[in-house]
Amino acid sequence: MNSEMAETASYQNSRFMKAVRREPVDTTPIWIMRQAGRYLPEYMAVRSKTTFIELCKTPALAAEVTLTAQRVLGVDAAILFADLLPILEPMGLNLEYLKGEGPVIHNPIEEASQVDRLTDIADMNCLDFVFEAVKLIRADLPADIPLLGFAGCPFTLASYAIEGGSSKNYRRTKQMMYNDPGAWHALMTRFVDNLVIYLRRQIEAGCQAVQIFDSWAGCLSPEDYQKYVLPYTAKLVAGVQDDAPVINFLTGNPALLPLQRQTGGQVFGVDWRINLKDAWEILGEDVAIQGNLDPISLYADIPVLKEKAKSVLDAAAGRNGHIFNLGHGVMPDMNPDHVKALVEIVHELGSR
Amino acid sequence: MNSEMAETASYQNSRFMKAVRREPVDTTPIWIMRQAGRYLPEYMAVRSKTTFIELCKTPALAAEVTLTAQRVLGVDAAILFADLLPILEPMGLNLEYLKGEGPVIHNPIEEASQVDRLTDIADMNCLDFVFEAVKLIRADLPADIPLLGFAGCPFTLASYAIEGGSSKNYRRTKQMMYNDPGAWHALMTRFVDNLVIYLRRQIEAGCQAVQIFDSWAGCLSPEDYQKYVLPYTAKLVAGVQDDAPVINFLTGNPALLPLQRQTGGQVFGVDWRINLKDAWEILGEDVAIQGNLDPISLYADIPVLKEKAKSVLDAAAGRNGHIFNLGHGVMPDMNPDHVKALVEIVHELGSR
Repeated sequence: MNSEMAETASYQNSRFMKAVRREPVDTTPIWIMRQAGRYLPEYMAVRSKTTFIELCKTPALAAEVTLTAQRVLGVDAAILFADLLPILEPMGLNLEYLKGEGPVIHNPIEEASQVDRLTDIADMNCLDFVFEAVKLIRADLPADIPLLGFAGCPFTLASYAIEGGSSKNYRRTKQMMYNDPGAWHALMTRFVDNLVIYLRRQIEAGCQAVQIFDSWAGCLSPEDYQKYVLPYTAKLVAGVQDDAPVINFLTGNPALLPLQRQTGGQVFGVDWRINLKDAWEILGEDVAIQGNLDPISLYADIPVLKEKAKSVLDAAAGRNGHIFNLGHGVMPDMNPDHVKALVEIVHELGSR
Repeated sequence: MNSEMAETASYQNSRFMKAVRREPVDTTPIWIMRQAGRYLPEYMAVRSKTTFIELCKTPALAAEVTLTAQRVLGVDAAILFADLLPILEPMGLNLEYLKGEGPVIHNPIEEASQVDRLTDIADMNCLDFVFEAVKLIRADLPADIPLLGFAGCPFTLASYAIEGGSSKNYRRTKQMMYNDPGAWHALMTRFVDNLVIYLRRQIEAGCQAVQIFDSWAGCLSPEDYQKYVLPYTAKLVAGVQDDAPVINFLTGNPALLPLQRQTGGQVFGVDWRINLKDAWEILGEDVAIQGNLDPISLYADIPVLKEKAKSVLDAAAGRNGHIFNLGHGVMPDMNPDHVKALVEIVHELGSR
């Protein structure tokens, strides 16, 4: 067995990848969405020297914060430090991160007639900073810790592209869906086609699995999700899942779970709005589930946090295929000691 | 039969009240949450002469905008023009409506130790402007149109009281729930006790039914809802439902429906995140349902709006006990002609 084969075997035998395949594990694996974020002093030390977007675009720094977070938390997977939106730039959108306001797109797709402004990425190498970061992280990550890549789902990216930033009610996005299904189809197809290549390149560079984020799809009725979103997310998953397992994450509406299931993937990421037992009943026992502690639990006192983590583990009831996570990302003003405590609690209580 | 008895008979035989009792109707009744709002030029004409809060506190004006909206839309119920929050003032919170920012509470309950600052309403007559408006509206409303009163649910009011305004993640609210259940219990109990009296007074003044709004409870996990919210909402409903039917409205999380059902009420208001057929299966055939068109559908072109309204009616499948509504309130920049068209569409397509 050469060293590359040995490495692959080691990733595949990790606690995390076993859970992805619904094999027995010694204890429940855990990672935390946005684990390398601003709540961590080690991150802030790096971040203080640069801007957020420069950090994303500097492979050595992105690698450093990714690796540090995995190490200080003791989590079972690392996730590439990156953002959902930089893929929009080479597609023709003018993206800026404004201090205190978050991402802003200066030339959003305001009308159906503007959809053609969104182009395919002529040369995926313009996102080399992402693939370089993956290589650097993989080279330095412990052999039993898998690295996750990720991307936004077509709907979430389309919403950003149309609304120009975050939105309260997704009025423009839905308006385009409803009033110009042709333009909507063109937009979503363009995203899917580019996302498939983007995720495959992340996997090629060294990721063991990828998560797709439909962070905003919860604003949709089941009927709209089925008609305007499901076919595109399904195409995305189909284009990637043979290369590496897909963690299919959606937040904001548990009633979409049966339809989300149809989009495919090996693992389903669910938020805290539903009991994990019910989620498993809906999704079926043949998939793994990631979740689903309410992130606000991290503001609770440790004994309460422990109780709430236990409650999630109890709902999972020791099933194979449970990956512990928050139902959404950790927040900047959270106490890193509570995040570390959560990792320990899950490893302790999840022990078989 | 004296005239008061005749009036009562007439309200009770209205299309809307028949639907509340799940009796057959000639066509599906409809009203629109926030139907007397800023999208309506007739409202803006009144509103331009005063502030929002003065409008709420001036019975003649509140009555005028309530009556006008019912008349110009041709909806099957009127709802008292008022706001969720004025009840907070006599309980000790300093409420202000800031232009463009919405409601702000200048002295929110920031710590569990401050819960005692919230007092019972010594004399409910300080909210006489509400009860006076009810009397004026009832006197002028057509005999076959019921008048709805309303109030916020304890959780939604507690969130406002603690966060001081709207919130993205309800951090402080949940933190108090988690870390000081005693203070939380005291806070929720105070709200319930005062809300029961407040709603009974609205009914006494002339409302035929009341809606309770848990607009923000969708941020909760089923476990948290059950533990920290359900007992209080149940107590509220129990205290009112013998006086008049209760429409129990919650938005943001369809997975809470089975628990919301346990809080009681004759009608359940559901948002667009779930198919109405599924909602009925969860809630049981022995309740009426109000909903559930995605409000953003009103931005769609009329043929699409018609299709989407039909889809809601198809999901209800002519069951007794369907009251058509949006899944949330109508918005200021919506086209009043689309709202009027929706009312006509529902009456036409819902016809038995």
